[in-house]
Amino acid sequence: MSAPPPPGGPGLFLAFEGGDGAGKSTQVGLLAEAYESAGREVVLTRQPGGTELGARLRDLVLHGQAMSARAEALIFAADKAQHVAEVVRPAMARGAVVITDRYTDSSVAYQGAGRDLSHDEVHGIQMWAVGGLVPDLTVVLDITAEEGRRRRGVVHDRLEREPDGFHEAVRAHFLAMAAGDPGRYVVVDGSRPAEQIHESVRAGLEAKGVAPA
Amino acid sequence: MSAPPPPGGPGLFLAFEGGDGAGKSTQVGLLAEAYESAGREVVLTRQPGGTELGARLRDLVLHGQAMSARAEALIFAADKAQHVAEVVRPAMARGAVVITDRYTDSSVAYQGAGRDLSHDEVHGIQMWAVGGLVPDLTVVLDITAEEGRRRRGVVHDRLEREPDGFHEAVRAHFLAMAAGDPGRYVVVDGSRPAEQIHESVRAGLEAKGVAPA
Repeated sequence: MSAPPPPGGPGLFLAFEGGDGAGKSTQVGLLAEAYESAGREVVLTRQPGGTELGARLRDLVLHGQAMSARAEALIFAADKAQHVAEVVRPAMARGAVVITDRYTDSSVAYQGAGRDLSHDEVHGIQMWAVGGLVPDLTVVLDITAEEGRRRRGVVHDRLEREPDGFHEAVRAHFLAMAAGDPGRYVVVDGSRPAEQIHESVRAGLEAKGVAPA
Repeated sequence: MSAPPPPGGPGLFLAFEGGDGAGKSTQVGLLAEAYESAGREVVLTRQPGGTELGARLRDLVLHGQAMSARAEALIFAADKAQHVAEVVRPAMARGAVVITDRYTDSSVAYQGAGRDLSHDEVHGIQMWAVGGLVPDLTVVLDITAEEGRRRRGVVHDRLEREPDGFHEAVRAHFLAMAAGDPGRYVVVDGSRPAEQIHESVRAGLEAKGVAPA
């Protein structure tokens, strides 16, 4: 990164977090369109599974046999490490807007809240995995466990089959992380219409001076 | 582990470490025979790959595409976490002698020495993975990189294809770990005949009071 600033301007790294069914992929799509309309290169990615290695690791966790809480946390961390090295850092270095559907906060919330591991230890492993790279802004799409269950409809994988209490604990972790670093988070009520949520996201980006032109 | 001591006596956890071609599997076999002859239950395992999950992770690292140093270190740690939870702790709880072909020291030596990660950070991740479980005794089978290359003959995987300098750095890490905790390590010259090495291993176990009867 000792090269001169890339022509697209400095890279931007944005994360969407929230429970399953919160509407992350819709919002990622709307925001990507907005940046592309403004002439920016946009790189969309997701975790787990944003690389070839990550897809194989994701399959091991979500559709494989039961595993220990530590093994699961470390596999999610490995996915994250590869994702940052292979996708996020190279794209940011050339000035792209990188938007990720889930990042380290999901790992901390899901493993830390629901899996008998402490928030701090999972956070420490995650931060080591990504070499300390945090998003410029993280958007938490907040919905209740009940609403998430209603929206998900058909159950897809092992984590989604967890009872409401698990998803409420996950939600509490997301909200706590956002409350602890308000300058780097926007929390949006995910039960509102998609276009209204998008406006709130844009307002958060404008406050940081990095909104789509 | 609040149950009374198991009938086989307390569990014992022994690790063999050393470069590829050092003769670990031969020594694991000889020692297993000795404990079995003494009436102990013996559980043999290996890392990476001692569980179903571990075998899949091992395949990803050794035969898959190139990956970041951190992703590799985390995958080896995940293998270790599952191994300890699924194999080592249950076997020790029922009084078995668990002998593992490689453990945390291999991860520290290979990733820490050869992969641009520090000894301390890899050690920290490994210790978290195994919940702090260290072997009662670790045997380091010490051979030079040149001797290892000669013995390996046909190259099998990505790590084994590394040049001699890499394997010398790995060896230096094993020796440094042993030197730092002499009460928990036995270092044996791996170029000696197998039966002589086995006698040295037994002597180390006798000094700890845990040799096969």
